[in-house]
Formats: sequence, C-alpha cells, structure tokens
Amino acid sequence: MKLQKPKGTQDILPGESRKWQFVEARAREIFGRYRFEEIRTPHFEHYEVISRSVGDTTDIVSKEMYDFYDKGDRHITLRPEGTAPVVRSYVENKLFAPEVQKPVKLFYMGSMFRYERPQAGRLREFHQIGVEAFGSSNPATDVEVIAMAADFFRELGLTGIRLHLNSLGTPQVRATYRQALIDYLLPHKESLSADSQRRLEENPLRVLDSKEKADQALVEGAPSILDYLDEESQAHLDQVRSLLDALGIDYVMDPRMVRGLDYYNHTIFEFITEVKGADLTVCAGGRYDGLVTYFGGPETPGFGFGLGVERLLLLLDKQGVELPGLPALDVYVATLGAEKSNKLKNPYDFSDTDDLSDSTSKEVKVNQAATLLVQSLRRQGLTAEREYLNRKLKAQFKAADQFQAKTLITLGESELESGRVTVKNNATRAQMEVALSDLEQDAAAVVARVLALGDD
Amino acid sequence: MKLQKPKGTQDILPGESRKWQFVEARAREIFGRYRFEEIRTPHFEHYEVISRSVGDTTDIVSKEMYDFYDKGDRHITLRPEGTAPVVRSYVENKLFAPEVQKPVKLFYMGSMFRYERPQAGRLREFHQIGVEAFGSSNPATDVEVIAMAADFFRELGLTGIRLHLNSLGTPQVRATYRQALIDYLLPHKESLSADSQRRLEENPLRVLDSKEKADQALVEGAPSILDYLDEESQAHLDQVRSLLDALGIDYVMDPRMVRGLDYYNHTIFEFITEVKGADLTVCAGGRYDGLVTYFGGPETPGFGFGLGVERLLLLLDKQGVELPGLPALDVYVATLGAEKSNKLKNPYDFSDTDDLSDSTSKEVKVNQAATLLVQSLRRQGLTAEREYLNRKLKAQFKAADQFQAKTLITLGESELESGRVTVKNNATRAQMEVALSDLEQDAAAVVARVLALGDD
Repeated sequence: MKLQKPKGTQDILPGESRKWQFVEARAREIFGRYRFEEIRTPHFEHYEVISRSVGDTTDIVSKEMYDFYDKGDRHITLRPEGTAPVVRSYVENKLFAPEVQKPVKLFYMGSMFRYERPQAGRLREFHQIGVEAFGSSNPATDVEVIAMAADFFRELGLTGIRLHLNSLGTPQVRATYRQALIDYLLPHKESLSADSQRRLEENPLRVLDSKEKADQALVEGAPSILDYLDEESQAHLDQVRSLLDALGIDYVMDPRMVRGLDYYNHTIFEFITEVKGADLTVCAGGRYDGLVTYFGGPETPGFGFGLGVERLLLLLDKQGVELPGLPALDVYVATLGAEKSNKLKNPYDFSDTDDLSDSTSKEVKVNQAATLLVQSLRRQGLTAEREYLNRKLKAQFKAADQFQAKTLITLGESELESGRVTVKNNATRAQMEVALSDLEQDAAAVVARVLALGDD
Repeated sequence: MKLQKPKGTQDILPGESRKWQFVEARAREIFGRYRFEEIRTPHFEHYEVISRSVGDTTDIVSKEMYDFYDKGDRHITLRPEGTAPVVRSYVENKLFAPEVQKPVKLFYMGSMFRYERPQAGRLREFHQIGVEAFGSSNPATDVEVIAMAADFFRELGLTGIRLHLNSLGTPQVRATYRQALIDYLLPHKESLSADSQRRLEENPLRVLDSKEKADQALVEGAPSILDYLDEESQAHLDQVRSLLDALGIDYVMDPRMVRGLDYYNHTIFEFITEVKGADLTVCAGGRYDGLVTYFGGPETPGFGFGLGVERLLLLLDKQGVELPGLPALDVYVATLGAEKSNKLKNPYDFSDTDDLSDSTSKEVKVNQAATLLVQSLRRQGLTAEREYLNRKLKAQFKAADQFQAKTLITLGESELESGRVTVKNNATRAQMEVALSDLEQDAAAVVARVLALGDD
C-alpha cells in the first residue's frame, strides 16, 4: 500500500503525457504572441506568503495546505495556487524597477497542492496554467488577457465556452456593497445554509455563489453590485465591455459572480461551460490592484487568470477533441538470427551459458549492426526504433505496427554479408532493396522513395 | 524575511526561463528520436518509496529528505531523486504487462528536493532530466542510452565532456569485490578519513570515490573490480565497449567509479567535464536490474541516467554557448494622443477626474484601436505588443527597441481618421504607408514588405 502513489495524486503515463505536452506547447505559443514570458517559482513557499495573500480564514489556508516545518524549523507549505508565489517573486526580484518594461507579462504552468477530498477532476496535486500582468490599469490589459484565454480555448478546438463578466469596483465600492448585501441577507439569516451563515460573517460576497438551492432563491433578490459602481469603476467596466464588443468576444454580465479572495477589484471573469447539465468553470481571473502592496511592493495594478489543466483535458475529452498522438516512427529495424536459437530466452543474458557459441557470436554481430543502423538514422534526425529482445519476427512486426512504423528493415546475417537490406513500406507492403551505405548517407531520401512505393 | 523565497530555492525569471525551455525542448526532441516518452510522477511520495530503494543509511534518506506527515497522518516526502518514483509508477501501473512493448522507454524532467547546504549549483529544490528503460538486458540498451546523452550534450553545443565507464558486474561479483576491498582497506583503517572509516562499514565501495587526499593515495593501490568480473559480466562489458567503439564514442575505463546505491549492476557511467581544474559530473547512470523487484514487480532489467539541469546551464554558460533568446517582436504599436495631456498620470485611472473630457474620449478611441490592431496581428499568428501606459513617444520607442521590434506602427487620432498608418522598419528606419485594412487582411505580407525596405 505504501509503495503506491499518495492518495489524490496521479501518474501521467506515455500517451497521456503527450496530451499534456501538446496543451502546454499551445499555451506557450499563444502566450508568446501576446509577449507573455514564463516564470517558474519554487514548489514550496514560506507559510506566510500564502496565508497573507490568500487569507487565514479561507478553506485553502485553514484546511487544505500541505504545510510543515523543514529541518531548519521553517514553516513552509507546498503552494496551493500560483498567484501569491508570482507576486512574491515580482516584489522580491524588484521587477517593479523602472528599467523593467511595464506591464510585466508573466505566465506559469505547474503543480499546485491542496489537501481536499479527491474527486473526478479534483486532485491533491493538480496542475494550473496561469498568467499575471503587472503595471497596467488600462482596461485594454483586462481585455487582452481575456482574449488570450479565449484564443487558447478556440485554438485547442473547444466550443461552447461562455465568458462571464462582473466588476467588483474599487475597494470602496466593494465595502459599500458588502454592507448592502449584509443588510439584505441578515433578516433572512435563518433560511440560509449553514455554510452561508458562516460566510455571512466572514465573507458575505461568497454567499452569492452558493450552490445550495435555499440560498440561491434568496440570492435572486439580492442587490446587484453593478448598481453600486462609482464613476471610476463604471468607466473601467464600460471600456472593458466596449473593447470586448469591438473584438467580437461574446460575454454575459454576471453580477452574482464573486471571488473568495479580498484582493480582487474591478474586472473579474470566468470561462464557464456545461458538462452533463452542470456549469463547470474552466478558467477564472480578474484584476488585483492591491496585491503587490501585501508583499511590500509599490502600488502596482495586476491582472491575471488561472486555469486547471486536469479540467481542461477532461473537457477536451468530453468534447471529443482529438489531440495529436505520438508521431509515426520513420523506421523500425527488426533483427533476424537470434530468435532461431531456442537455447536462451534472452541471448544477451549469458548467465546460463558457459561459452559464447558460434551462433551467439553471429547474434552479437547482428545486434551490433542494428544499433549502428538506428544510431545512424537518429543522427540524421529520423525517429528510429529497433528490436532489443530477439523475439520471433512475428512479434517484432507486431511491435512495428504498434509503433506505427512507416518503414521496416529486417537485419540478419545475410544482409550483413551483402551489405544490402530490404526497406519495406509498412502500409502498402511494397519494398525496395538498398545498400546499407545509402541509408547511412541519406536515409531521409531512401525513406521518401519507399513511402512513394505503391502510391502509383 | 518570510516573504522571500525559501532558502536554497530559486525563481526562474523571464530571460532565464527561455534557456530552460530551450534545453527541455532539445531533450524532448532528441529523446523522441530514440522513442523515449515522458512520464510525470507526483512531487511527493510515501516515505517508504524512497527509503526502500535509495536506502535508509544514505545521506539522502537519513539527512536530506523533505519528509512530513500530511493531514491524514501519512508519512510523505518530497521526491529527492527521479528513479524511485518512476520505478514505483512502472510497477503500480503494471507497465510490465506483456501487452506493453518492451523495453519501456521513459524520460522525466522536474524538481527534486534535498535539504542540503546550498552552494553554487547545489540547491534544495533542483531540477533533473532523467531517462529509464525497463525490460532489456541487451548491452545495446546501455549503449543507446549513453549515446542519447552524448547526442544531447553535443547538440546543445557542449564540448570537452568525457565519458567514464565501469562495470559493477552481477550482485555476486559486487559482493566478492566488496570483501576484497574491505580486506585491502581494513589494515589501513586508521589512515582513512573519518567519512571513509564510516563508509568502510556501511558502504565500502564509496571509499573509492572519496575526495580526500589521504584516502586517494590508499585507493590508488586498491584492487580493481574489473579483475573480479565473471564471464557474464565480462561478456556484457565487452559488448558495451565494442558497441561504443563501433559508434565512435570515446570513453575511459574508470574502475574506481562507483555508485552509492546498492541496486546498480553491470554498466555504470558518468559524463564528466573539467571546470576550473576540478572534475564535474554532468550526468550519471547505469544498469539496475534489481530495482523493480524492490517494488514488488517481476524481475525486470533497467537502465537509466539522471542529469542536473542547473549544472548543465552553468556549464553552457561557462563554455559561452549562446542559447537562443526571445524571438524578435514582429510589430510594436505605439499610441499617440494621451501623452499630450499632463492632467492625469495614467489616463485610464479615472479616480481623479469628474467627467470624461473630450481629449480623454479621444484617448479611449486610440486605446481601443491599438488593441484591435494588435489582436488582429496576433490572430494572424504574428507576435505583437502595444503601449498600455500612454508614456511619451520617446519612452515607447525605447520599449520597442527593448522588445527588438522589427517594425513599428504609431497610432494616433489622425491615423484613425484616415484609416492609414505608417509602418516603420525599426532597423533601417525606412517606412511605408498602408491602409489599416491591409494589415487586417494580410499583416505578414505588409511586414515582409517593410522589412525589405532599405535593403536595396
């Protein structure tokens, strides 16, 4: 039991890992067009880095942290989310300095850790891709980041993802609205769910996104934050909306969408899709103009989002989006000779035999020739694989099919003597004889000729 | 203090992160030619996964683990190395099953964690790239993996890296040699360093790679394991050497090179280079035919290596290898208009103003047009950046230079009215006027024409 992976974690195996590579490569490419650059922070942070920014009363900090004391008695924690470490890094590395171009546009991708009850799509070690832009309060930055996420989803081939938009206004607006919401909810406190009653004290805005039916009926009639925006907040929101319209990016205003974290202001957004009748948030973000000062940096506007990679892959799967698999193998080299000998299960395991017989020394020659051939192919930039286990030819050909080999070469003693091999088109079964030296000189040309065989 | 990164960790910032991306992309490409595929395991494991395979008496397990109890009282540890988790995963996911092609060829890249005294090139969170091949005892597998590492170093542009080779033989050979070594060293125990005296008890082979001068003199005269190889071990080594020779891969036999971990047998190797007169191991690996059974799997040969990414980057830097930087920006869009108004430091910060003046509404239009333009360019696949902060034009042009912008477009009110902009070649300063609609239809063609300007 203890020699298994820890509960709530996963092994990403070949096949699956290719999907991850693909999604990450697309993110890097698209973010690069927008001139976002990668930042990598440690997997653990001082406890205070998270507790200060995420907040001691949140579930994340109070219940879900992988925190512990290291051998130097430092209170550290595996990072539960990506924004706090990036902001810590922004301040510690003085990226606010005037010589660094603003806005500073960063992205990250990596593991996050929360001790939660594992469920489908919710793991204790999970993965996020996120972006953060520091130094611009221009609404164009909000829209650019939102548009970049939309590009990412569209170019991955996802459909049916809706953009939900809201504004939390300035901290003052938020405070005024918070009081109005308390005033509205307090007389109905008894009808609220237990969770919402607790939230009413600690973080009343969170009552708005309660999933409980009882709460939702009450929330229907709650005041809307959009009616509380001041001129500055309204102007910011108007510009965001007008830019989204101009870019043809559809959205719905969602005045009941909130954030659990105190540091958000102005624009917040989520990309939401429906899976089996239930709403699923794929990506969430917003503006956090106060956060850099939490870490002792100068007042600096910020805007960013995070998205869960597990959830994204789940969605790609549900929508039947085909991600590119392993590219087909250019050449598979089968070996002939050793499989004739039934004396040894594995001819390279010499533990059972007292002397190297003649036939074994021939096997060694074929074995060596096969490595020389695949190495030559690989050095020429082709993908090549060979047989290592001297299985029967039938098993080797099956392996070639599993590798989706485009071409197949069988190497045996007679091929070594003549210096010539047969290259087979593994789709059409057409074949051609060439000199080994031709393959060593220009394998790509030989493969191209063989692939053209049987096309006519 | 607590809002800084934990001691012994690093932030990898833009500029530096590009080097990491480059090295990782090269590894993925080269490993792919050899048909190795990526595996990703969790960043933490049950304590037993590491202690069982790495060994309780090693420094790694006894002194350097980031281990702790999670909220479910599980004894877990951040992974200190990559092989044990991959073997755990190989067994747990039954990759030994007959339907999975053998050898199973895997690579990983990621963070490892050891509580050591931080030094140049030695961090508490450090990064390894490693490969593991399961299921082949063919010496061709040893050589293929060694050749792949050599390809990686060569294609990165590194020079002066020597391959050191040794054989530890079968477990029996190792045991016999171990006793011979004890017999030789024991009479000289008093002259050994304290560390080596301890090792003589726990792991006598480790005395051989002691860096202490006193030990080294004694070790000079120690018996060589190569004189203890049995027929099987000798045949395996002979084939490895003959394949390396045939491939033209130079190496030196290094009979005093050992491994601290018990599970290695037959071939072990290191790639070593000299930095400032001292030997530096860049990559170390070998055969571990016993390890899979430690985890309850069937007897399965294994071969792999690990290399430290920090050390590799250090070496690339020392050897003056230039890694590609951020690609130049295709288009930078400067904005004109807002910087004339000195009333607001930031025209999008409306907190200071009571009404949107006429000039502010013009600024909003230019702001919107700039976003529409860069979004159109990005959707066409170009890299584009714009001004967000309405700085003076001089500062914007400086930004364009810092971004290595190939072309520059200045957008102002008059451009919006005429629907025409001037596209400047940022190298030659030559320029051309085009309609905004031309840019929206085929920006790549416009950019190509502008880049050709001044070439004649």
